[in-house]
Amino acid sequence: MFIFFKENISCECIERNIEFVSKFNYINFDFGKEKRGIYLLQDVSKEIIQEKISGIDKIIEINKPYKFVSREFKNEDTVINVGDFKIGGGNFQKIGGPCSFENENIFRNIAATLKNFGVNIIRGGAFKPRTSPYFFQGIGENALKVMRKVADELNVKIVSEIVSIDHIDLFNEYVDIIQVGTRNMQNYELLKHLGKLKKPILLKRGLSATVEEFLLSAEYIVSNGNMNVILCERGIRTFEKMTRNTLDVSVIPLVKKISHLPIIVDPSHASGSYDLVEPLALAGVSAGCDGIMVEVHDEPEKALSDGNQSIKFKRFKEMSCKIDKIREVLF
Amino acid sequence: MFIFFKENISCECIERNIEFVSKFNYINFDFGKEKRGIYLLQDVSKEIIQEKISGIDKIIEINKPYKFVSREFKNEDTVINVGDFKIGGGNFQKIGGPCSFENENIFRNIAATLKNFGVNIIRGGAFKPRTSPYFFQGIGENALKVMRKVADELNVKIVSEIVSIDHIDLFNEYVDIIQVGTRNMQNYELLKHLGKLKKPILLKRGLSATVEEFLLSAEYIVSNGNMNVILCERGIRTFEKMTRNTLDVSVIPLVKKISHLPIIVDPSHASGSYDLVEPLALAGVSAGCDGIMVEVHDEPEKALSDGNQSIKFKRFKEMSCKIDKIREVLF
Amino acid sequence: MFIFFKENISCECIERNIEFVSKFNYINFDFGKEKRGIYLLQDVSKEIIQEKISGIDKIIEINKPYKFVSREFKNEDTVINVGDFKIGGGNFQKIGGPCSFENENIFRNIAATLKNFGVNIIRGGAFKPRTSPYFFQGIGENALKVMRKVADELNVKIVSEIVSIDHIDLFNEYVDIIQVGTRNMQNYELLKHLGKLKKPILLKRGLSATVEEFLLSAEYIVSNGNMNVILCERGIRTFEKMTRNTLDVSVIPLVKKISHLPIIVDPSHASGSYDLVEPLALAGVSAGCDGIMVEVHDEPEKALSDGNQSIKFKRFKEMSCKIDKIREVLF
Amino acid sequence: MFIFFKENISCECIERNIEFVSKFNYINFDFGKEKRGIYLLQDVSKEIIQEKISGIDKIIEINKPYKFVSREFKNEDTVINVGDFKIGGGNFQKIGGPCSFENENIFRNIAATLKNFGVNIIRGGAFKPRTSPYFFQGIGENALKVMRKVADELNVKIVSEIVSIDHIDLFNEYVDIIQVGTRNMQNYELLKHLGKLKKPILLKRGLSATVEEFLLSAEYIVSNGNMNVILCERGIRTFEKMTRNTLDVSVIPLVKKISHLPIIVDPSHASGSYDLVEPLALAGVSAGCDGIMVEVHDEPEKALSDGNQSIKFKRFKEMSCKIDKIREVLF
Repeated sequence: MFIFFKENISCECIERNIEFVSKFNYINFDFGKEKRGIYLLQDVSKEIIQEKISGIDKIIEINKPYKFVSREFKNEDTVINVGDFKIGGGNFQKIGGPCSFENENIFRNIAATLKNFGVNIIRGGAFKPRTSPYFFQGIGENALKVMRKVADELNVKIVSEIVSIDHIDLFNEYVDIIQVGTRNMQNYELLKHLGKLKKPILLKRGLSATVEEFLLSAEYIVSNGNMNVILCERGIRTFEKMTRNTLDVSVIPLVKKISHLPIIVDPSHASGSYDLVEPLALAGVSAGCDGIMVEVHDEPEKALSDGNQSIKFKRFKEMSCKIDKIREVLF
Repeated sequence: MFIFFKENISCECIERNIEFVSKFNYINFDFGKEKRGIYLLQDVSKEIIQEKISGIDKIIEINKPYKFVSREFKNEDTVINVGDFKIGGGNFQKIGGPCSFENENIFRNIAATLKNFGVNIIRGGAFKPRTSPYFFQGIGENALKVMRKVADELNVKIVSEIVSIDHIDLFNEYVDIIQVGTRNMQNYELLKHLGKLKKPILLKRGLSATVEEFLLSAEYIVSNGNMNVILCERGIRTFEKMTRNTLDVSVIPLVKKISHLPIIVDPSHASGSYDLVEPLALAGVSAGCDGIMVEVHDEPEKALSDGNQSIKFKRFKEMSCKIDKIREVLF
Repeated sequence: MFIFFKENISCECIERNIEFVSKFNYINFDFGKEKRGIYLLQDVSKEIIQEKISGIDKIIEINKPYKFVSREFKNEDTVINVGDFKIGGGNFQKIGGPCSFENENIFRNIAATLKNFGVNIIRGGAFKPRTSPYFFQGIGENALKVMRKVADELNVKIVSEIVSIDHIDLFNEYVDIIQVGTRNMQNYELLKHLGKLKKPILLKRGLSATVEEFLLSAEYIVSNGNMNVILCERGIRTFEKMTRNTLDVSVIPLVKKISHLPIIVDPSHASGSYDLVEPLALAGVSAGCDGIMVEVHDEPEKALSDGNQSIKFKRFKEMSCKIDKIREVLF
Repeated sequence: MFIFFKENISCECIERNIEFVSKFNYINFDFGKEKRGIYLLQDVSKEIIQEKISGIDKIIEINKPYKFVSREFKNEDTVINVGDFKIGGGNFQKIGGPCSFENENIFRNIAATLKNFGVNIIRGGAFKPRTSPYFFQGIGENALKVMRKVADELNVKIVSEIVSIDHIDLFNEYVDIIQVGTRNMQNYELLKHLGKLKKPILLKRGLSATVEEFLLSAEYIVSNGNMNVILCERGIRTFEKMTRNTLDVSVIPLVKKISHLPIIVDPSHASGSYDLVEPLALAGVSAGCDGIMVEVHDEPEKALSDGNQSIKFKRFKEMSCKIDKIREVLF
């Protein structure tokens, strides 16, 4: 049962309400004035609630497994602010960059070029969760620091993947969007910790996760207090062997119908092949996604990871131009 | 080993060549003057070939499981002629109509309305392969006859699904494109028979077929002599429960890269839900498909099958308009 | 609504009953005296039924998608008679033989050896549905005739796969159990035709079919009049690359709980690897299956198809011995 | 390149060797006298190795993605010692207990009863990774302490699931086998930390993990120094809706062929249904697994989690007896 407070409720009143529900199993939520209240996880009679809780605006039930991320909780699209840049609610972002951060020069070159193409958010892996312990595991902490420095120089924002709760302070300090990768979509302890931050979280869909499981993972973050979740479809595992994964475009309109969170598409991981990146990106855009995240490298053949799915600058620029044209005629 | 004949090869020369290879395991193919020759399925030394076969233009090996459907066999896009209407090689067709043919009035109304919207090919099921023997199995032969009559009146073409080799003559007489459904994608006996016709075949991808298996099913048709195959992606089975199937848009650029056959998209079966039809159709178009096939009904709630995934006229018209806009800016 | 007739109902009475229901959508079933009656596919009030239909033993509703194959329709296990050999209801059969029939000598040698090991039913493919048109497609009609001759000499029964409704008379004449392969599990026209025969049908589960779809395919056969259906689990498609398919042992106890039909296991196709055949066969036996079907060849390395998953005589004998031991201690 | 040291190599010699390879990318392994050495992750010429490294017993290459867990690295079965109880190499353990620890009385009753049935290792969840944040998340730290106390009283061992690297010291102190659940199979940071312990690790297969990915996750633990890994097949995700997951029995003989690690089966999670537990357990045993782990509860209907897949004492005892009989006749 969701109890929303009136906008003008006083702090004392909120305190008294929370004191009353403290004997129940509850979540106290505060997503700004119009979205403050209490979620009671157990049955309490409406009479008692209305008698004991004051400053109530409305009481609603959300009969879906996911609650805070649902349209029932919040009807208007959530817009995520990454500095001055916005994602969601009609705001589209093209995110690009190398799979892994390799060194400052390579990174600056990629970031600066993409910035020139209108890209405001740069991706770069510092810690890489690899299927084999013998694959390149990323450069680590130092990569984050250098990316931060370059980003500040270029006035772009940084997204990078976290792989351990031990790194939360580090990521909170150095990156602008913290990415949770496919393999950690159900690392619930990590999600709970990220829910305590205010930082935007980019949550990638698990390899064989259903939409419901995907939203429930987002729910772990939002129910802990952080509404700034960007969903990311990056391909699911299917029987197809010619692609690395299979982009599920249906998830875009589906998520938009049932959730207020923005959703972007990662056509690089979805395909694993540079020549499929553009058609998949355009497909995602036409299906209504709020952004794309693409691996870009000036010399993909020399990249330390995922070179085969990285596209070059020229191709990125062309793709970017087509995205703009589609968005112009459709939205 | 593929032996292509010169364009001006004489009939006698062809006959002598075939007489020579008759002791081998071979296929004699004839897809028009520039695509005539012999496919030898067993190893024969090039010396012997060049000595015994005359009028050779070129000899090539195709080291892929699929041969006739590959770009190696035929580099230029195949264009399928359905009467005056074309599919493939830049020609796009919107196909619409009811899931099942119900009665002449309903069908004429749908077909006439769609014709007004610029649709030239109408779909309509006469024989329905249903998971349960107790579901509506289609009206059968009579549906084909009525659809033919209406189509001729309206100057549109008809596509309908075949479910048995017993019906081949019937379909060859009454429909313009013979559809092979998902469940029959690997009904190889049916495919072999359809390879003997000249009629266009619309081959739907199997529920969990890989792209290679899909192309090998097309290969069954083409290697038997019928090049007029239109591939159709209609969603694959995944773990997702909120949609009926999952549209695999990657298959479009993938197929276009390795095969010369056109490929269209069926967003109705792919989603199972009327409100996902448009975004999936647009995604398919942006990914480069050669057409869409959509279930349209004026009263979906009364349809005898698949009502939930059928869209109404107004929605079709809007979607159609968006498709045109995307194609204009992209292609 | 299932209306069962009393055992002593007269033919005239049955005729009158059928005359009455002829205006409805119905199935008249006759599986022997205690299982005769009418299945009404549409709602008719019980009052009218009891007034108009005579000789009623009981009326039941079966609220599952599958009806005739359910335990609700028939509680006791169905026992299939293949000549004097029985499958189901505690009767276990080991079926063995080559993937494809190759020639009389090889076949007789395999069949005779297996007969010595206590095998009564021999498998052998005459028509092979292969993913590629360029793979060996089987020897065809003549294979059936020779297998019949050898089988009669050795007093064994023959199971072989049918791939086309064109071959129904042929199979009805020459084989003892007609196999429907994985790729034809949803070839409903074929299933309907097989439902008109009395011959046992071995129905293999489709590559990605659910248990419900599997039972509904069996329902197509049984609702058309043929109760003699043996289900066969042969592995489903999963993401695993080290095996050809993945044996789903759960389907055995699951099917036994909800259906009266026997179910056997094919560990050869399930694994695609000769050294996994024994452990999978034993797993199936322990899970309660009614038989196994295994590819056996004296020289697997020379087999024209599926050599890698065929086991040799010695291994078959050892496995067979272990199966007997397990069945002795468990059942 | 794996360089194995001679058994009688001196500590100084090892130190010198390690000093030499310190400029390379290497792993120094020590799994007891006969399994000590260096794994060089980069190419170094054999001549240099043989010149600079002393006390070499043998040098081998392992051309598989997984190295330390492969039969090439260690041919004999690994036997895991859990106190006096052994798993692997012919040693079989039946593990039972409640899904979640609920309270001391319930747990002691279950543990004591199972101990009487010959069970030496008791399972019990303290931290539960649940798909929804609103499901019961386990009692936490205190559950571990009470389980430890009860286990010591009854002379049994405890297995419990870890969900965060924050809890490693806690688990190292209180439990005998640390379980890594399905959702954390690719939580590589957690695996690396567990590789630093000596404690046995029970690693569950991911929901849609291939066997190669499963072994590579084990490789993360073993390559960090901990050979005590027990693999656990607990069902994979398939399209089947009648079971929670699908037990993949093939993985048992497959893993035994390519790896020296023991593998057990969890039929409770594999099926999600109490009446499938026994047939699946028996199937696993017949396929050659080294143990089973089963959810047992005296009052499943009152269990705080997974009641539907828990079996009662009587059923456990009967199943246990059947397992013994099968193992007697087969092994």
